[in-house]
Amino acid sequence: MYSTLKRQVFILLDPSDGDGFWDKLVDTFIISLILLNILAVILETVDSLFIAYGSLFRAFEIFSVAVFSTEYLLRIWTCTYIDNFKHPVTGRIKYICSLGSIIDLFAIVPFYLPLSTIYDLRFVRIFRLIRFLRVFKLGRYLNATRIISNVFKSKKEELVLCLLITFALIIVASSFMYFIEHDIQPDKFSSIPETMWWSITTLTTVGYGDVFPVTEAGRLLTSCISILGVGLFALPAGILASGFSAEFQKIKKSKNVCPYCGEELTDNN
Amino acid sequence: MYSTLKRQVFILLDPSDGDGFWDKLVDTFIISLILLNILAVILETVDSLFIAYGSLFRAFEIFSVAVFSTEYLLRIWTCTYIDNFKHPVTGRIKYICSLGSIIDLFAIVPFYLPLSTIYDLRFVRIFRLIRFLRVFKLGRYLNATRIISNVFKSKKEELVLCLLITFALIIVASSFMYFIEHDIQPDKFSSIPETMWWSITTLTTVGYGDVFPVTEAGRLLTSCISILGVGLFALPAGILASGFSAEFQKIKKSKNVCPYCGEELTDNN
Amino acid sequence: MYSTLKRQVFILLDPSDGDGFWDKLVDTFIISLILLNILAVILETVDSLFIAYGSLFRAFEIFSVAVFSTEYLLRIWTCTYIDNFKHPVTGRIKYICSLGSIIDLFAIVPFYLPLSTIYDLRFVRIFRLIRFLRVFKLGRYLNATRIISNVFKSKKEELVLCLLITFALIIVASSFMYFIEHDIQPDKFSSIPETMWWSITTLTTVGYGDVFPVTEAGRLLTSCISILGVGLFALPAGILASGFSAEFQKIKKSKNVCPYCGEELTDNN
Amino acid sequence: MYSTLKRQVFILLDPSDGDGFWDKLVDTFIISLILLNILAVILETVDSLFIAYGSLFRAFEIFSVAVFSTEYLLRIWTCTYIDNFKHPVTGRIKYICSLGSIIDLFAIVPFYLPLSTIYDLRFVRIFRLIRFLRVFKLGRYLNATRIISNVFKSKKEELVLCLLITFALIIVASSFMYFIEHDIQPDKFSSIPETMWWSITTLTTVGYGDVFPVTEAGRLLTSCISILGVGLFALPAGILASGFSAEFQKIKKSKNVCPYCGEELTDNN
Repeated sequence: MYSTLKRQVFILLDPSDGDGFWDKLVDTFIISLILLNILAVILETVDSLFIAYGSLFRAFEIFSVAVFSTEYLLRIWTCTYIDNFKHPVTGRIKYICSLGSIIDLFAIVPFYLPLSTIYDLRFVRIFRLIRFLRVFKLGRYLNATRIISNVFKSKKEELVLCLLITFALIIVASSFMYFIEHDIQPDKFSSIPETMWWSITTLTTVGYGDVFPVTEAGRLLTSCISILGVGLFALPAGILASGFSAEFQKIKKSKNVCPYCGEELTDNN
Repeated sequence: MYSTLKRQVFILLDPSDGDGFWDKLVDTFIISLILLNILAVILETVDSLFIAYGSLFRAFEIFSVAVFSTEYLLRIWTCTYIDNFKHPVTGRIKYICSLGSIIDLFAIVPFYLPLSTIYDLRFVRIFRLIRFLRVFKLGRYLNATRIISNVFKSKKEELVLCLLITFALIIVASSFMYFIEHDIQPDKFSSIPETMWWSITTLTTVGYGDVFPVTEAGRLLTSCISILGVGLFALPAGILASGFSAEFQKIKKSKNVCPYCGEELTDNN
Repeated sequence: MYSTLKRQVFILLDPSDGDGFWDKLVDTFIISLILLNILAVILETVDSLFIAYGSLFRAFEIFSVAVFSTEYLLRIWTCTYIDNFKHPVTGRIKYICSLGSIIDLFAIVPFYLPLSTIYDLRFVRIFRLIRFLRVFKLGRYLNATRIISNVFKSKKEELVLCLLITFALIIVASSFMYFIEHDIQPDKFSSIPETMWWSITTLTTVGYGDVFPVTEAGRLLTSCISILGVGLFALPAGILASGFSAEFQKIKKSKNVCPYCGEELTDNN
Repeated sequence: MYSTLKRQVFILLDPSDGDGFWDKLVDTFIISLILLNILAVILETVDSLFIAYGSLFRAFEIFSVAVFSTEYLLRIWTCTYIDNFKHPVTGRIKYICSLGSIIDLFAIVPFYLPLSTIYDLRFVRIFRLIRFLRVFKLGRYLNATRIISNVFKSKKEELVLCLLITFALIIVASSFMYFIEHDIQPDKFSSIPETMWWSITTLTTVGYGDVFPVTEAGRLLTSCISILGVGLFALPAGILASGFSAEFQKIKKSKNVCPYCGEELTDNN
């Protein structure tokens, strides 16, 4: 009977398993609580709201940490039903060290740390940012992420190369710009790391307008960089487009393939 | 004979039906009137024009509301020719409650409401914005929308996921930025909701330049966010590209498929 | 013998015809002269250069107009070799009225008009802008334009629909923004046409920073608009990507198709 | 025995050859040294760091130039193992004149030039920028660049045409804008070359906000240009997307093609 309860708790908590009424209720409740927590942290920073509803925010914080703590302990208790974490001791340790569990732990630990009484309140609020890691727990509940993550995995090398090209471009552009504009605007282009702020806001076409070149050479370099920035947009877009095409074709093919010759079947709808 | 008139009115008003001279004339007239209405609302806000031609604008408003009202009533009268709304009473009620009819109604109702005499004129002009819903009526007259809406439908889940990733990124970036820049620029990064203004203008690479970080950590975060912003552009572009490829191939395939083996035929043009 | 000379002149001037030494020389000379003309107009506006080399600019102008005039007359003389313009009188009139010839004419006519003596010099320089139409003559000499123009032609309807959606979005966003921000910033959002300046610079993510909302509602609307702006980029990118894929596959298919079954052949390189 | 040593040195230095422990060690060491050199040049420009660790930077400079010089000489010595550069004299000269070797040489030469004693120190630091060319040496060590460079090669003509269209647009837009805004803002739109700064920052949607039109006509032109700028993003994205699709399909096809009929095989994973 003990084992049946454990099994039921496992099924209740596992988002991909079970279709019953209680199963869906538990899932919906936890997702809602995560979203409300994110909202609470955001709204707490609005001074007028914090002054008016400070105790309410505190009460909600205690309630949600209680729920997440219970959930965390139940997950560790029932994790032995997963093949990877079968062993009652080493399996549980392995489960605790898995990325998902670490995020779960970080979402509740800041509350229990006695730091809030010792250190300045403001300082603690920075730690509370970790609570935002809870948002990643939503990843568990969403299914459509698989296609996008597959595309990123299959095109990982090309996308990393794009990033490397971007970094190289930022370094080269910043160095040239530093030597061109440093003498004219020594406060804005004071060093190469400082100049990188300009090159990134230009290459990504954000263009705040707080730093921009005034010399002819600097403007010429900016023109080249910003046109290359267009290519910087086009490259990953092109890579991802081909990745998505391949991924969707794969899904489609696995559905309608002639069982005899392995040839793709044409849908006439 | 009554029935023939009703049928003719139905065919005249239905944009997808009938090819006669009067049919095209009615369609062209209504589309033109909708476009002129949009133009009138835009030009009315220019003070110099409103002072000079105020009575003309009023006359045009009365004329177009009269036309749209007549059109609305005729549509309700003749809607029983559509299979879905066959029943003279319940069919008509169903038709009135359809999205297209509600938009039609909202386009004329503000004029008839006696609010303009009670409330401040300015307030009423806000309600007149609803007239812009008339622009969506153009959707009825355009055929090419089908491909684009099909692509959006088939890739809905991936696009929604893109939006969710964007929202998550905005929340995480705003929270971090708030804790980084709040002490240095308390007026610009006064709360997390306020900081979201910065994160959205940066992530979408708009970069007005009214809010930007000044600390080293803030600039580093901005760099990461703006480079991720490039990915934010690339992701939907890639998804839509694969969607359009699939959609156009589907159209092409349905045209030239070998009737015996279901194999795609090659066009030699 | 007269006819032979005419034929040779026709071949010399026709960029797609003939491969001889003189043929290439004439083509290169005309392209170079067009490019130098564009450069001259650009550099003339730099005051220091115009003062120093004014007479040189004038001489170069006379020389190039002489060359382009001769070229224009020779083209009209020899156009009867093209099947479409065979007839010595009506054929030549048809040729003069073709788009290419009109551009050629507009490139030389401003020089002959006596306006420069009557009107202010500045005014005439505005007409000289027409000389920039010469740049389109380069279109004759480039072959690779065909693929890009084919893609644009095949996806014309979808791209036009993108533009229409953009216009609708600009109108709706401007109207809402006008009612939201007009009272707070009456100088920047003075009318809906004026507010369109904001909506266009935001939707295209240019974001100069001269006009931006300050109210909460205005910022929320801007956030929606700028995120939709990302979609505005993704949509044509996706459409063009599918267009280019289809175009390049068509070219490839027309090259390697099995002559018996019309099936695509696989290249093993 | 001499020849064996030469062969071993060649294999050690050639990044694509050999899998032994020493082979990987040498490769890793050189890549790390290149990256550290780039970091050193960047950090040297930060005044506080240069004052504190100036001698350390100098020592690291001497060390790395010594290593790169040795590497350069060893590469010339052993290049005869490559088929293209077999001949001991002419082969080596050909190798020295290859792009890779010229970059290698430029990375070390500035150090040996006695200019630093003659000219101002600042001037020499500009020459030290050439050291950044070392970053391109990393290209040798990366394999994934092949796909991206293949796509760029196969779509070179279309991408160049995109650039040409961009240049034409910049010239035309700048000329029109000059005539429109020159009288109102003579300091910002002083000449067509000066106006190009505006057209480039607008067309690439950077939008610093230092130069923007104030007249109605100027704003209309900016609107057209910035919407065309969106197309400027979409065009290369579309071209590259089709290029990547073709490239990845080629790779996939060369892997699984039926050896009998040359038909593509469907993978059922």
